[in-house]
Amino acid sequence: MRYAVLGTGTVGRTIAAKLASVGHEVVIGTRDPKATLVRTEPDGYGNPPFAQWLADHEQIRPESFADAAAWGETVVNTTSGAVSLQALEAAGAANLAGKVLIDIANPLDFSQGMPPSLNPVNTDSLGEQIQRAFPEARVVKTLNTMNSQIMVEPSRVAGEHTVFVSGDDAGAKQAVTDLLVSFGWPESNVLDLGDISTARGTEMLLPIWLRLWGALGHADFNFHIAGA
Amino acid sequence: MRYAVLGTGTVGRTIAAKLASVGHEVVIGTRDPKATLVRTEPDGYGNPPFAQWLADHEQIRPESFADAAAWGETVVNTTSGAVSLQALEAAGAANLAGKVLIDIANPLDFSQGMPPSLNPVNTDSLGEQIQRAFPEARVVKTLNTMNSQIMVEPSRVAGEHTVFVSGDDAGAKQAVTDLLVSFGWPESNVLDLGDISTARGTEMLLPIWLRLWGALGHADFNFHIAGA
Repeated sequence: MRYAVLGTGTVGRTIAAKLASVGHEVVIGTRDPKATLVRTEPDGYGNPPFAQWLADHEQIRPESFADAAAWGETVVNTTSGAVSLQALEAAGAANLAGKVLIDIANPLDFSQGMPPSLNPVNTDSLGEQIQRAFPEARVVKTLNTMNSQIMVEPSRVAGEHTVFVSGDDAGAKQAVTDLLVSFGWPESNVLDLGDISTARGTEMLLPIWLRLWGALGHADFNFHIAGA
Repeated sequence: MRYAVLGTGTVGRTIAAKLASVGHEVVIGTRDPKATLVRTEPDGYGNPPFAQWLADHEQIRPESFADAAAWGETVVNTTSGAVSLQALEAAGAANLAGKVLIDIANPLDFSQGMPPSLNPVNTDSLGEQIQRAFPEARVVKTLNTMNSQIMVEPSRVAGEHTVFVSGDDAGAKQAVTDLLVSFGWPESNVLDLGDISTARGTEMLLPIWLRLWGALGHADFNFHIAGA
């Protein structure tokens, strides 16, 4: 399968590398590939420059958002939630139509200081915004409730723990579930919450996730629904 | 210990009965005890009339919010989140001063239809509102992330699962932790998130809790933080 991963941050790199390692063809999309490639400084989160990461992942090709989305059979949104709609506009509605669009982003708003708040929240979600903006895409919200390393290596966390899926298209959710199983998730730990509006619930896990990160002092934890 | 449980709904009844069963003296507070006692119809949630429940719990005395709070050494807020501040105003700041105030309420807002939203949310929480309104009370938010039966009988859910505590007063959180242990919670499953602002995180679990209730078709589940 051809995957287009939009976003070159930690989540995008981690997902792209995993997709390649399990045998998929992968491009990684960014707003301006040339500008991304010439950067020599770590990004705002301290990640090494993208070109350095890319040198270690020769099979992964960088492209513009539009070229990546046009080429991919499945598209994965790992851009920052605050700019996801812009990034997907740049990718282009026609390049997303009919495709499974896996949305991993969280709409964290750092404009009011720390801890970040969510925008939208409560009566709307980024997942729903994306589905409304791109009605022909088959949006599945998943993996947004954990550290990126756990996304692709669930055995990092001992015991049972849960990955949620939300979306309006049952076939798309099944395809995403199959992908999660290929990442190492037991199918019994993939929990289908329902339609895309249930993304409100998973995005609203972020505030407690951030507080748990602080209280525990590490990010190697995940939510498990005991008794499910 | 003398406990004043404010609220006569399912949560209040369940907590009051448990407190009595583990040997505490308990009063249950309501806005207007006479009016509450003369009701002969089930409440809005289908619970039997309060007088019927009270007849089965002879050791528990109904009182006004103020009389209950004045008598209790520890106060438990189980009122509906939308009216909790009013109920605590009726209880009276002087009757709460210096006391541990256990807040189990969630600020669910049904005014916009189903599913309910939260108000406040995101940049504030009911737990913080209560602490600000009653600065001399020692507010601990806990137990608000699960069905009431699990609060007092955690073994209903198989395996490990978590109860969160949030509050500014370490001594109050320890007292609440001891109470939770007496309810059957292993101390290792009591997770201190930090100060009262972390109540935003636990209150914001409600949207996914409600969706899980729908997806699973039962309420005998709870959050567990795997890897904590």
